[in-house]
Amino acid sequence: MRRFVTDRARRAVSASLRGATRPAAPSPAPAAAPALSRPSPSAPSAMAAYMARAMSTSAAGTPPVSLDTINPKVLEFKYAVRGEIVTHAQKLEQELHKNPESLPFDEMLYCNIGNPHSLGQQPVTFFREVLSLCDHPALLDKSETHALYSSDAIERAWQILEKIPGRATGAYSHSQGVKGLRDEIAAGIAARDGFHASGDNIFLTDGASPAVHMMMQLLIRSEKDGILCPLPQYPLYSASIALHGGSFVPYFLDEETGWGLEVDELKKQVDEARSKGITVRALVVINPGNPTGQVLAEENQKKIVEFCKNEGLVLLADEVYQENIYVEDKQFHSFKKIARSMGYTDDDLPLVSFQSVSKGYYGECGKRGGYMEVTGFNADVREQIYKVASVNLCSNISGQILSSLIMSPPKVGDESYESFMVERDGILSSLARRAKALEEAFNSLEGITCNKAEGAMYLFPRLHLPQKAIGAAQAAGAAPDAYYALRLLQATGIVVVPGSGFGQAPGTYHFRCTILPQEDKIPAIISRFKEFHEKFMEEYCDVSCDEAPTSTTTESG
Amino acid sequence: MRRFVTDRARRAVSASLRGATRPAAPSPAPAAAPALSRPSPSAPSAMAAYMARAMSTSAAGTPPVSLDTINPKVLEFKYAVRGEIVTHAQKLEQELHKNPESLPFDEMLYCNIGNPHSLGQQPVTFFREVLSLCDHPALLDKSETHALYSSDAIERAWQILEKIPGRATGAYSHSQGVKGLRDEIAAGIAARDGFHASGDNIFLTDGASPAVHMMMQLLIRSEKDGILCPLPQYPLYSASIALHGGSFVPYFLDEETGWGLEVDELKKQVDEARSKGITVRALVVINPGNPTGQVLAEENQKKIVEFCKNEGLVLLADEVYQENIYVEDKQFHSFKKIARSMGYTDDDLPLVSFQSVSKGYYGECGKRGGYMEVTGFNADVREQIYKVASVNLCSNISGQILSSLIMSPPKVGDESYESFMVERDGILSSLARRAKALEEAFNSLEGITCNKAEGAMYLFPRLHLPQKAIGAAQAAGAAPDAYYALRLLQATGIVVVPGSGFGQAPGTYHFRCTILPQEDKIPAIISRFKEFHEKFMEEYCDVSCDEAPTSTTTESG
Repeated sequence: MRRFVTDRARRAVSASLRGATRPAAPSPAPAAAPALSRPSPSAPSAMAAYMARAMSTSAAGTPPVSLDTINPKVLEFKYAVRGEIVTHAQKLEQELHKNPESLPFDEMLYCNIGNPHSLGQQPVTFFREVLSLCDHPALLDKSETHALYSSDAIERAWQILEKIPGRATGAYSHSQGVKGLRDEIAAGIAARDGFHASGDNIFLTDGASPAVHMMMQLLIRSEKDGILCPLPQYPLYSASIALHGGSFVPYFLDEETGWGLEVDELKKQVDEARSKGITVRALVVINPGNPTGQVLAEENQKKIVEFCKNEGLVLLADEVYQENIYVEDKQFHSFKKIARSMGYTDDDLPLVSFQSVSKGYYGECGKRGGYMEVTGFNADVREQIYKVASVNLCSNISGQILSSLIMSPPKVGDESYESFMVERDGILSSLARRAKALEEAFNSLEGITCNKAEGAMYLFPRLHLPQKAIGAAQAAGAAPDAYYALRLLQATGIVVVPGSGFGQAPGTYHFRCTILPQEDKIPAIISRFKEFHEKFMEEYCDVSCDEAPTSTTTESG
Repeated sequence: MRRFVTDRARRAVSASLRGATRPAAPSPAPAAAPALSRPSPSAPSAMAAYMARAMSTSAAGTPPVSLDTINPKVLEFKYAVRGEIVTHAQKLEQELHKNPESLPFDEMLYCNIGNPHSLGQQPVTFFREVLSLCDHPALLDKSETHALYSSDAIERAWQILEKIPGRATGAYSHSQGVKGLRDEIAAGIAARDGFHASGDNIFLTDGASPAVHMMMQLLIRSEKDGILCPLPQYPLYSASIALHGGSFVPYFLDEETGWGLEVDELKKQVDEARSKGITVRALVVINPGNPTGQVLAEENQKKIVEFCKNEGLVLLADEVYQENIYVEDKQFHSFKKIARSMGYTDDDLPLVSFQSVSKGYYGECGKRGGYMEVTGFNADVREQIYKVASVNLCSNISGQILSSLIMSPPKVGDESYESFMVERDGILSSLARRAKALEEAFNSLEGITCNKAEGAMYLFPRLHLPQKAIGAAQAAGAAPDAYYALRLLQATGIVVVPGSGFGQAPGTYHFRCTILPQEDKIPAIISRFKEFHEKFMEEYCDVSCDEAPTSTTTESG
C-alpha cells in the first residue's frame, strides 16, 4: 500500500469542502446581462431583443432560473447517499484513471450505496434467463433456444407472456402493473406470511423509491402534516418529505440496545409534534434497518402496530431487506403478517409494505423493479392512489417481471432449482461472513464501536473522535464525520457515507459502510481502513487519547 | 355487426356516469367507528383500544385517511388518458370475457392511448436482440448465441456492456444514466441537428413523464408560478402542474389554422397571467402535437424561441413524436437546432427537450425509457436537477440502453440494416395510411370535422353536436363529448378520450382517437364508428339538423 500523504490530504479536504459549499451569492442572473456580442444571424438583433426585454415590465417579473428562483424545497433537501462525498469520489476516480500514480491507492472502493452488482455480485441466472426471453419473445419459437436457456426459464417466460395482454412486453400495462404478475406476487406474499394477499392491492413501481414518493404525495398537505421517521434513517424519507412540503418528525433508535425501536420514544415524539400543531399522518419503519442493520423482534412489531392503530397513523413499512438476515436468532416478519396475526383485518389499519428487486440476494438495482402492497385504505382513497400511479402510466415491464420472479423463485423439482439455491445461498452466506468480518474489524479499533449487522446491507459504526479532530472539522466547515469520511476517501479510496447524512443523536458521529465489496477485497479494505484510522486518531490525539474514548457507549455486537 | 341497443345503452351511460361521480359525502371515517365486534386475539381488547383513543386528545388531531384528509392537489388533478372512460372500458372488457354475448360488439378497440404494442405492433427485432443479450450477458460467451442473434446485435451488446462500469446491467448507474450511453445519445442528437450535443446534458429517465415532473418540481414554488401550456394539451402537463402546486396558464391552439401556435396568443396569455400576479416560468410546446397531431413550421419555431428569450421563459419542448411525421411538406426540427441556428448558445436560453422510447416507430412504452436534454441552465441549478434525479437513484438500465439504440439505430452496412429499415418504414408508412384513412372517414361524416394528422399518433376530430345531445349530456351530468365517448364505447367497444380531458375552446367538443389499431382493423372501426355516429346524430336530431351543423368551423384536412 502506498504511503499516506497526510498534509496534502488535509489541504485537499479543506479545498474540497470549500468547493462543495454553496456559494454565498448566487451567480449573476444570465438574462439580466444581454448577449450583445453574440452572433444572432436569423433572429432580430440582440440589441432589439434587449430593448424589447428592457421595455417589457412583465419580463422584469420573470427572473431567470437561479438558485434564488427555483423551488426552495428542492434547494433544501439533502440526499447524502449520492451527495458531496460521492461526487468527490467520482472526481478522484477520473484522476486515478488519467494518472494512476497521482493518488495513494489503486482503486476506488464504493461502500456508500447498496449496489451489489457494481461491486461484482453476479446476477441470479434463472432470473436473467427469463428476462432475456421476455425481452425477445421470438426466441421462444426457435429450437436453438433450448441450447442456451434452461427449460424451466423457457417455461416461465411462456407463463409470464401469457399473463401479459397480447404478450406485448413493449406495451404500457395497467397502471398498477400487469394483473397476472400482481397475482403471482400476492401468492408469494401469502406463502411468506400465511395470510391472504390480493393482486388488487399491489402497485408495481420502478423500485421502491417512487412508491414512497407516491405515499408522501398522497398524505402530505402542508408543513403541518408530519411523518414519523427513524433517526438514523435512509435519507430517501427526509428528502421525499421535504420535497412534498411536509414535516419530518424524528424518533431516535437506541444505539445502546442495538438500534432498538421503543414505542415510548414514538409516543413522546408524536405528542411533542402534536403540541406544535403538527398532524402526524404516518409512521415509517425500516425493517431490517437502513443504515442500522437491526431486525425487529416480533413482540416489538406488535407494539408498533398497536401504536399505529391507537394513534390513527398509516404504517409505512420499508421491508426491502426482507431476504437479508444474517443471524440465527432473528427472522423477518412482515408488518402485515403481524397485524393479521393480531386479528386486525383490512378495515383496521392502513398499512403499506414496500419491496424492491434491488436488495435481497438478487440485488438487481439497475432493473428498477418493486412494489407496494396497500391495505387498509377505503375505496375512494385507493382510487386516488391509482390516479397518482396513472400519471406515469406504468412501471417498466422488465422490473415488473423481475418483481414477480423474486416473489416466486424456482421450486423443488424445477430444472434450475439446485443451481438457483447454490447461487442464492452462496450470496447470502457470503454477505453474512462479510458483515461479520467488517463488524469485528471495526470493533477491534480504538475509537470505534459497531453494532451487529443482523440484516440489510450496512454497518453503522460509531466514531469516538478526539476533540482535536472535531475542532479540525469545524475549522474546515464540515460535520466531524463528514470530515472523517472525506479524509478516509482521500487516503484510501474507500467511500462511506457520514452519519450526519442519515441523522444521529446529537454529539454522536457515525458512518455507514456497506458489506457489499466482494470477499476477496475485504482483507485489503480492513487493512487500508485500519492504517488510515490509526493515523487519523494519532494525528488528532489530544489529552483524552491516553484515557477512554472522548464519549463512551456500551460496546455491543 | 350486432344491433345497437340504444335504450339500454342510454340507461347504462347514466348509471356509469352516476357511478363515476365523486360521492357527495365522503365515506364514514373508519377510525371514528371502533371495530368493537372484530376479533383481536393477541392485542388489547378493541374496547381498550377505543378507550385509549377516545382519551387521547392527540388522536383526535389525526383523522384517518379519507378524501377529506389527503393532499388536495392529488384530489384535484385529472388524468383523462387513463380516466373514467378507460376504467369503464376495462369493466366492459371483463364483462365481454365472462359473457361474450352480453354486449353489442366482439372486442374492445383501445384508441385512447399511444400504446402501439398493445394493439399488435411488433417490436423492432434489432432493439430486442440487443436488450435480450444485455439482460443475460453470459450468452455473449457462447457460440450457440450466433444461431439466434444477428452479428451486429451481438457486437452492439458488447459495445454497450463496455460502456457500463463492470458490465453490470444490474447495478444502479450514475443518476443521469450511464455516461457512455448518454454520449451515444448526444452523438445521435448532434447527427440529427447538425449542432454539438453533450452527454453531460442528458438525463436518462423512466420514460418522458418523470422528466417532465422533475422540471415542474424544480420550477414551481407556489401557485404564483405559472407554466404556459397549449390547449388542447396532453394532460400529463396539467396533472404535473397541479401536483406541484403551480398555475396552469393556457394558450389556445388555433383549430382553424390546423392547430396553429400563434405568438400573439402566447403574449396575450402571458400578459394576462402576469396581470394576475402570476410569474410565468416556462412555456410547454408539444411538437409534433398531442392530441392535435400538427407539426410546427420552422419559422413558427423561431418566433417561439425568440418569445421565450424575450420573456425570460424556460422552453420545455416535448419532442417525443419526433420520428412520427406523415406528410411530405413537414419536417421535424428540434427546438435546440432552431435556437442554435438563430445563434443562441447554451448561455442564452434555458431549454429542455424531452424524448421517449415509447413513441416513434419503436413504440416501446413498456420499457419506460427516455431522456431530457438540459441546456442553458447555470451550474448551480444543474446541480439541483442532478440532486432531484439522484433521489430515485437512476432510471432502469434496459430503458437507458433502448434510449441509446433509438438514437443510434443500425447503419448502412450493418447486418441488420436492411431488415431494420423494412421494419421501420413498414411501421411508419402504415401509420401514415391509417392516419389518412381515419381522417377521411371522420371528415365524411355529418357533424364531424377533422384536421390532418401531420404527425404524432392521434386525430382530434371536432364534434358538432345537436343541442338535444348537449342537453342529454347535461341531464346525465357529463361533458357533451364525454357523453358521446361513453355512448360510443357502449355501442361499439371503441375507446376514445373526450376532448374535455385535454382542454378545448369553450363551446367546442372533440375526442382524441389514436391511429394505432392495426391496418386490418381500420375498416371495421370505421364502419362501427359510422354506424354509431349516424344513429347518435339521428337520435338527437333537432331543428338544426336540417340546416348546417350547430356550430361551424373552417373545414380543413
